[in-house]
This record gives sequence, structure tokens and C-alpha cells, in this order.
Amino acid sequence: MAAAISTDLQMITLTAPLALDSGKVLAEVRVAYDTYGELAADKSNAILIFHALTGDQFVARTHPVTGKPGWWERMVGPGLPIDTDRFHVICANVIGGCMGSTGPASLAEDGQPYAMRFPVITVRDMVRAQMALLDQLGIERLHAVVGGSMGGMLALVLAAHWPDRAARVLAIATTARHSAQNIAFHEVGRQAIMADPDWQGGDYYAGGKGPDKGLSVARMAAHITYLSEAGLTDKFGRRLQDRDAKSFGFDADFQVESYLRHQGIAFTSRFDANSYLYITRAMDYFDLAEEHGGRLAEAFAGATARFCVISFDTDWLYPTAESRAIVHALNAVAAPVSFVELSAPHGHDSFLLDVPALDRVVKGFIE
Amino acid sequence: MAAAISTDLQMITLTAPLALDSGKVLAEVRVAYDTYGELAADKSNAILIFHALTGDQFVARTHPVTGKPGWWERMVGPGLPIDTDRFHVICANVIGGCMGSTGPASLAEDGQPYAMRFPVITVRDMVRAQMALLDQLGIERLHAVVGGSMGGMLALVLAAHWPDRAARVLAIATTARHSAQNIAFHEVGRQAIMADPDWQGGDYYAGGKGPDKGLSVARMAAHITYLSEAGLTDKFGRRLQDRDAKSFGFDADFQVESYLRHQGIAFTSRFDANSYLYITRAMDYFDLAEEHGGRLAEAFAGATARFCVISFDTDWLYPTAESRAIVHALNAVAAPVSFVELSAPHGHDSFLLDVPALDRVVKGFIE
Repeated sequence: MAAAISTDLQMITLTAPLALDSGKVLAEVRVAYDTYGELAADKSNAILIFHALTGDQFVARTHPVTGKPGWWERMVGPGLPIDTDRFHVICANVIGGCMGSTGPASLAEDGQPYAMRFPVITVRDMVRAQMALLDQLGIERLHAVVGGSMGGMLALVLAAHWPDRAARVLAIATTARHSAQNIAFHEVGRQAIMADPDWQGGDYYAGGKGPDKGLSVARMAAHITYLSEAGLTDKFGRRLQDRDAKSFGFDADFQVESYLRHQGIAFTSRFDANSYLYITRAMDYFDLAEEHGGRLAEAFAGATARFCVISFDTDWLYPTAESRAIVHALNAVAAPVSFVELSAPHGHDSFLLDVPALDRVVKGFIE
Repeated sequence: MAAAISTDLQMITLTAPLALDSGKVLAEVRVAYDTYGELAADKSNAILIFHALTGDQFVARTHPVTGKPGWWERMVGPGLPIDTDRFHVICANVIGGCMGSTGPASLAEDGQPYAMRFPVITVRDMVRAQMALLDQLGIERLHAVVGGSMGGMLALVLAAHWPDRAARVLAIATTARHSAQNIAFHEVGRQAIMADPDWQGGDYYAGGKGPDKGLSVARMAAHITYLSEAGLTDKFGRRLQDRDAKSFGFDADFQVESYLRHQGIAFTSRFDANSYLYITRAMDYFDLAEEHGGRLAEAFAGATARFCVISFDTDWLYPTAESRAIVHALNAVAAPVSFVELSAPHGHDSFLLDVPALDRVVKGFIE
């Protein structure tokens, strides 16, 4: 079960209740966020970064739970492509998450955790909460909005529904709608969590024991989709883990087994299983065209931003064809867009890893 | 938990103990099998079919547990590509399986189920048991051996280790070694099973309650790998299940979710979770080149058969590149081999489905 967060979080409570796509209303919404670099006096230099499914606001700061570096330290910082000597970078934990923003582990009005009483949210709801955050911070127009994976979905939603809010929209390794295969993998993860008796219908917060085994299996399955087949072969192949011969048993004989088990277990120390249910659900519900009569171009009809769309050739979770569909839609409404498919061996996770070409494209677009 | 088998199975007990690759020995090994068509007086017309991971001997007969048609009824029967008017078709349940052949649910010498005391077996051990079956049936040389997916692995092992045993080897949608990604998906399934408290370390046979939830999740994850992304999109897309709008809940809103859940649950009625552990382990251990100093061609140095290798363009579990590696190795030892990549939309499962070109290739090769 996720450990308690051991640091004081930067946090704001939204002054108005949040009306959700489901028709429900969330009151007293907290948004936890982190910032880097100085905000200019005219507030013109803000860049909003949206994190991915299991990411959080600790873009470039040591994670308060794991003690590991921030998830995009190679991209965000002084002199880096997203240069905090010039820009004021904001990243907020999505609602539904578990790093301080209101989510299923938060206390409802009755003083008990929401658990599965938390309303099902959408990607647009996540953006809505962050637009309210910007309102309260007094930031009208962003220099840029940037997101990879789920973060890219949020960036596209911002462009579609708050078209005047950002001058530049950078969407990396993402899609305008979750495919049947995307939904299928998420459903496996959700079923793994809900099959764990320690899930207890979501009401596990009091007991101190959550569905760690189920969440671990969910993470393992998802993790495979973040890596390319060739990347896995390069990294692990069929190499054995700390042994010279197969054990003829069910221990982790292969390095790839050991690695996946570790990924699964480590994840449970920093992530709440119910948050995993809610955020994957939001992603599965995501279909930007659907909200616009099935025509994706309509979503961008009022866009005022410049766009940059980046895909990776080995990403089979959100393959280049998905980015191409976004670019076609932007072209159809004559929105200025640059598009590049980068070659990188790491699969979907390439957006987080050492891909110098990505650094150059991001830096060039943000300038 | 898998239901008891409700029919009398055709079965043989091997007269000699089976020496396994692990160094262990299995005594009193039973091999359950099914046959179709008449065996010629000179026993020259036998075709051995190897089934896939979750298949069984009921190739062309109503399944005794599910009541569903045999898994290859479209391929095997009178006048069909594998013509039972001409050939005597044999298919045996692999050892480690759960349709009558000795496996983890079988009783050990102490009268209790083996459960996890069953020895870890290899693909070669599976073939070994079936070669002993052929010995006892008095069949020296097969007209052909045929297998898809895991069955193809068994066919390749037969060609490598019992090179005089078959005149024709037909390997469909298979590989000569399990990749890191293949292992990773199997490990997710195993962890899902072992995370289920009803697994009870494998000792669930007495209680009548097995790790159905874990096994169901394992099946769901595996099932995704059997289908192509495009096939899933064609079949389900983002269509909703029996509703007009999203429920904003965690029911199976999408058809693909409902389908996967059904696949998972249905599987538990016919398959033993411990068998799933042992058979996936055998597949993960499979690397035909490794047994031959890392050179796959060496495996086929003594081959006397004609080979046919078939892949499917949408199969991402065992993609065409894996078949090509097999063909290269066969070419390197000048073995006669024909190779075709068939176009079919169904992904890995294409070998089980309506692909007329597959029928023609199989029929032509078997003649």
C-alpha cells in the first residue's frame, strides 16, 4: 500500500466546486503542484507540464516517497530544453491521483475516504481542475503546455476546450483516443486489482493493507506495453538472473522476470490502487473526436496555438499512426503544426529516456 | 476451478518411466489422446498434431467439458485439408496439461495431487512423452507432424531430436525461442495466479476452490497477445456493451472489456491453474538454439523431413521474423523448406480461424 507522503506539498484548494463530465460535482478540491523557475512579473513565461498515468508533480525534484530523481530531470531544469532559468514550470498532480490532489484516498464530507465513492472522472475533468489552478494563480495564457502519454491527452484537451489558454501545445507519444487494445490492457490491470481480496471493494485505507499483489500485477502488465519488443530483447534477452543455469522452478530465472517483479512491487510503495482504477478509467473514456461529433478536426476548430506532435517509431502503445491522426485533424483546420516521428529503441517510454533528438525538438519548439 | 472431465478419455500409460530434462524421472505417466480416421495396415498414414498452450486433444471432437466444437474442426475431418478419410490423425494432451495426461493435478505416489511437487518440464519432455506414445502405438514414422503456436515448438523439437520420426514437419505461427517479451507476458500471468490467495501454494485441489480470479486475469492478459491491434479495433473498437452511454462506473462499459472478462471466466471452467504455470514455464524455457551451442541450424543438422513454415503478418506474439529465423536455419543445413507469410487480420489466433490461404497451404503440404 502506498506510503504516506513525507513532505509538505505545495497545494491549493479550488475556490469553486468542480462540475464534472459525469454530472457530479466535487467540492473542496485540492490540487497539489510543484513549480520550478521564477514567474515573470507579467506572468507570460509559464509552462504547464501534464504528467502521465503514474507520474506526478515531481518533474525535476527528488520524489518525496521513493527518494528517486524527478521523472523528467533530464528535460526540465536550468539550461535544459525546458529551461527553468527562463520559464516558470508548473506541474500539478491530476485529480484522481494520489500525490496530494483530491482523489479516491481523500476524505469525503463524512470524514471517511471516498474510496469507490469517488466520482468517475475524465481527462477533461483533470484539465478542468488545472485550469482552475491557473485561474487562482492568475496565469491567463501559458507560454506552452507540454505532455507525454496521458499528459499528451491532457494537452490536446486543453487545446480543444481552452483554446486561448496556451500559445504552444506539445503532445508527445500520445493519442486522441484510447484504442480497443489500450482499453483491454487497462482492463486486465483493473481486474487484477479488483481480484485481490485485499482490495476489499476499495475500502482498504483503514486497515493499512491494500491490494499490493493485484496492483503489482497490473503494473507488470502495463510495463510491458511501455517497452518495445526489441528494447526488451536488447536489455534482457533470455539472460538468466544471478544463476548459471535454469532452476527448473518458478523463481525468477530470467532477468526480465526479476525486473518486472521489481517494477510491480516498487510501484505499490508509491501509488494508490484506487487511483490506478480511476485514472485508467479516465484514459479509456478518452476519445476527443467523440466529444465533437466523431470529427477530430472539429475539436481543434478554435485552436489558436502552435502545435508540435512527436511520436516514437518503436512505441506500440500509442503508435505513430495515432499521432498522424492528430496531425491530420490539425491540418484540416489549418492549425500550425510540426510533426516528427523520432527513432528510439525504448518503445513508449522513450519520452522519458535519453533521446537527444527529443531534447532538440522540445527545446526548439519551446523557444 | 476446472470442472472434472465428464467423458471417458482415450488414454495410455507409458510402460517406461520418463526421464525429464530437469534430471527428474516421472513414473506411471499417462498420455491422453484422441484419434480420427483409420490407421493404415502399414501404419504409414499417421499425422500427429501438437496442440497449443491451452489446447488439448479434442482437435475435431466436441469438447467434453465445454461442449464446444473441437479447436481445429475447420482443418481436420473428412475431406478437409487434414483429411481423415485418408489420414489417421493423433493428438495427445501434453504432459503437464489437464485433460487426462499426467500433470500437476495428477496423483503422485503418495496418493495426493502433485500440485507444485510436479517437476518442471520442458517442451522436449512433452515431445518425449508423445514419442513414447507412438512407440506403444507401433507407429515408427509419421506422414506428418503439425503444430501451431506452442504446437509448432513441439514440431520443431521433434524435427531436431527425433529427426527420423516424421516425413513432413509443419510449423505454424511459432518460434524457435521465447523472447523476453514472450517471457514477460507469461510471468504476468503466473504472478496473477500465484497472487490469488485461493492458489494456496498450488494445494487447492481438495477444497474445490482454485485461483479462478488469478487464472482469469492471466487468461485476459494472454488473450490480448493472441489478437492484433487492428483486429481488436475491427471487432470491438470503442463500442459500448449493451448501453447507449458510458456509465461513469467500473462495469464493463466497452465491448472489449466484456469480451475479455468472459474469456477469462470461461477459461477457468476448463483449465487447471497449476497446468498453466507449468506449461508457460516450459514455453519460456524453450530455446532450440541454446540446446545446440546457440546455433539454430545445428538443431536441424540431422533433419530428414520436408518442412513448411507459416507465419501471419499481424501476429505480434510470434512475428514473421521468428519464422524467418527458423527458415534461415533450415536453409543453412539444406533442408527442404517452404515458407509463407500469410495475410490475415486476426493476429496470432489466425492459425485457428478462417484463413482460406492457410487451408490451401496445409492441404498442399500434407498431400
